[in-house]
Amino acid sequence: MPQFLDATTPDFEEQFAALLGAKREDSPDVDAAVAEIIADVRARGDAAVIELTERYDRLTLTPETLRFAPEEIEALIAEVPQHEREALELAAERIRAYHARQMPEDASWVDESGATLGWRWTPVSAAGLYVPGGLASYPSSVLMNAIPAKVAGVERLAITVPTPDGVANPLVLLAARLAGVDEIYRIGGAQAVAALAYGTTSIAPVDKITGPGNAFVAAAKRRVFGKVGIDMIAGPSEILVIADGDNDPDWIALDMLSQAEHDESAQSILITTDRAMAKAVEAAIERHLLTLERREIAGKSWRDYGAVILVPDLDVAAVLSNRIAPEHLELCVADPDGLSEQITHAGAIFLGAWTPEAIGDYVGGPNHVLPTARSARFSSGLSVMDFVKRTTLAKMTPAALRAIGPAAETLAISESLEAHGLSVRARLNHLNEL
Amino acid sequence: MPQFLDATTPDFEEQFAALLGAKREDSPDVDAAVAEIIADVRARGDAAVIELTERYDRLTLTPETLRFAPEEIEALIAEVPQHEREALELAAERIRAYHARQMPEDASWVDESGATLGWRWTPVSAAGLYVPGGLASYPSSVLMNAIPAKVAGVERLAITVPTPDGVANPLVLLAARLAGVDEIYRIGGAQAVAALAYGTTSIAPVDKITGPGNAFVAAAKRRVFGKVGIDMIAGPSEILVIADGDNDPDWIALDMLSQAEHDESAQSILITTDRAMAKAVEAAIERHLLTLERREIAGKSWRDYGAVILVPDLDVAAVLSNRIAPEHLELCVADPDGLSEQITHAGAIFLGAWTPEAIGDYVGGPNHVLPTARSARFSSGLSVMDFVKRTTLAKMTPAALRAIGPAAETLAISESLEAHGLSVRARLNHLNEL
Repeated sequence: MPQFLDATTPDFEEQFAALLGAKREDSPDVDAAVAEIIADVRARGDAAVIELTERYDRLTLTPETLRFAPEEIEALIAEVPQHEREALELAAERIRAYHARQMPEDASWVDESGATLGWRWTPVSAAGLYVPGGLASYPSSVLMNAIPAKVAGVERLAITVPTPDGVANPLVLLAARLAGVDEIYRIGGAQAVAALAYGTTSIAPVDKITGPGNAFVAAAKRRVFGKVGIDMIAGPSEILVIADGDNDPDWIALDMLSQAEHDESAQSILITTDRAMAKAVEAAIERHLLTLERREIAGKSWRDYGAVILVPDLDVAAVLSNRIAPEHLELCVADPDGLSEQITHAGAIFLGAWTPEAIGDYVGGPNHVLPTARSARFSSGLSVMDFVKRTTLAKMTPAALRAIGPAAETLAISESLEAHGLSVRARLNHLNEL
Repeated sequence: MPQFLDATTPDFEEQFAALLGAKREDSPDVDAAVAEIIADVRARGDAAVIELTERYDRLTLTPETLRFAPEEIEALIAEVPQHEREALELAAERIRAYHARQMPEDASWVDESGATLGWRWTPVSAAGLYVPGGLASYPSSVLMNAIPAKVAGVERLAITVPTPDGVANPLVLLAARLAGVDEIYRIGGAQAVAALAYGTTSIAPVDKITGPGNAFVAAAKRRVFGKVGIDMIAGPSEILVIADGDNDPDWIALDMLSQAEHDESAQSILITTDRAMAKAVEAAIERHLLTLERREIAGKSWRDYGAVILVPDLDVAAVLSNRIAPEHLELCVADPDGLSEQITHAGAIFLGAWTPEAIGDYVGGPNHVLPTARSARFSSGLSVMDFVKRTTLAKMTPAALRAIGPAAETLAISESLEAHGLSVRARLNHLNEL
């Protein structure tokens, strides 16, 4: 049974702290196996990748067939039904329009000392996107990872997607095409991450790797971090719905089940001011759990990690929400904009009952790759910013150096860094001799 | 002897690749020891921190004296000579002015479907800054880490700084005061990182930890990552100077020694179009190495990792620089602005011979915490952005949901996520019934 907490009871703080602290993920320790795979790919390149693909995906490749050929992609994409193609196109267009607004601006100014200061943003040159195969092979994730990279100006964007038994998902290929992906490799697992990070004869190395994956992929990303950049290591998905009494409990139930159906470790929490609403949502969830296709997964998630929290007012709801720092936050209340002003930590906010979280997964525009496990306290969802980096700029004039150089020299001496001080002093002496 | 490479020789590519690939850091493996320290602090809190401080810093503390008292700070700060105080104040002011311009802007707009989209930036609530003790206890690093956090709006900023044998650095305390730091704890090592991440009775936990440290601190930061955010794990410092023939070789020699004196593993590289300049800089470095206070460290760095690369023209220099992706890049050429346009990967650029890198370490304004070990290919220096996070916002209207909801439903079905589709369908059905 999901937990029921009442914020007005004396033991609430203890129960809420336990809910916050509960560990939902129990990743298998595959680190040693992954270290071996990475070492093998570094040592033997293509040959290792091909052998591992044969072993794990039951698929025989050659250096020439590691990468999808353009005509194969064409043929597979042609299978996509028209209505799916149109839906994916709409999603791509909306995601592109949203992310285009995220491009940060360069800056340059002259300060009162006469120094020119500023910064400049440049894209990562080459990025790799890991796309899971099989059941979790989501075309929407391809769009959400690839479009920000291309908007940022990444010149070379490679995808790896395992195709167990040679079966490819035409929608994934179409999404890659719509997003402007340059290369698609039919490989997966730690071997794909290693190939992207270190390169092989057939696969050039990239500078940054993003995208979701299983425990092997996550462990491999952790291991190659430093050699290349990586995005966050995502945990199981979560939703928090804050609802007042004026809602359709069925809508809220379905929104909560949208998270629960992802993963047995997913978490759906309802905070409400209305006890009757709490009960009605619980009942609606149970009803849907009788028929939902993924009822086994969703049911286990709901029973193990689901929670309903009754609060005296929406101010308390906001305080609890900020302690949870949810990945997805739905505000199903009369004044969602007003309540959102009180939210300080959340990956994404969905304002009002007309905004189901599922809209954000596909066609809303904002990214669906978001910080999980309370990491919205210190991190953000995927964005164009993940594919650019800043170079700071400084240019002194003789006058500027005369104005601020002596302070630099003083501090260098105080830190016992003599050469630092001398590098400034040599120039100041030259100015004094002029 | 430092390496000498000539870009026009047939074996240059091989030599350059070896220079790029050379590993400069050989961190001791302290991970097991660090895991134990973290577990101990989590289990026993203050008691563990106090015991470990006694063992490593030969300093006996109580829960009451873990933190510096305001009057102690006052007394120590009073020792700082006036000229050092003024230099630090100038640095703080300039760093604050530069970083204030980095605050990102919120956005909100209504798209053609009628949906309101946007994002909002919020600061991290509490941050912790690790400051090394002893020789590497740099007040400038306190300013560079703490000021961006305070500019971002971090409400609670705590510093940990070990004080071996009870000896504190007054300049570090003054820097903390100038930056607006709220709490200063006299602890260090992995135990300080653990205390910041998990909290103890006397030290409240933070959400993000930044700052440099030794192998223990770096390993502890890696381990607590996820529980809290961390900044980059910095490697040894590097400088690349690109110089034409019209330079004072002594200035360039001192700039290169500024990096070399930091650390035996630091790296200084000169790329020049002028063979005579190359020789003159080498000679000037050797001359300074006879007298420099830190000549042992700087000499070892220069002999083991220093390099001079002769190139036919500045275009080649830019291409090589982008492959190196240096932490610090000095452009000592006639048209530094023009050359900087060709630079795609660098942490910080110092334009023209009047801008020694040391200016950037102290009083330039830009941050001196910068990506090392070629990570400027995919990451940026420390900034206000490290202390804020983005919450995306989406608000549908009935009309917007009617326009884009069906596409979301189609994609949900194609990904076999039934509840996602139903959560949209329930709302669309309601609209159709109206």
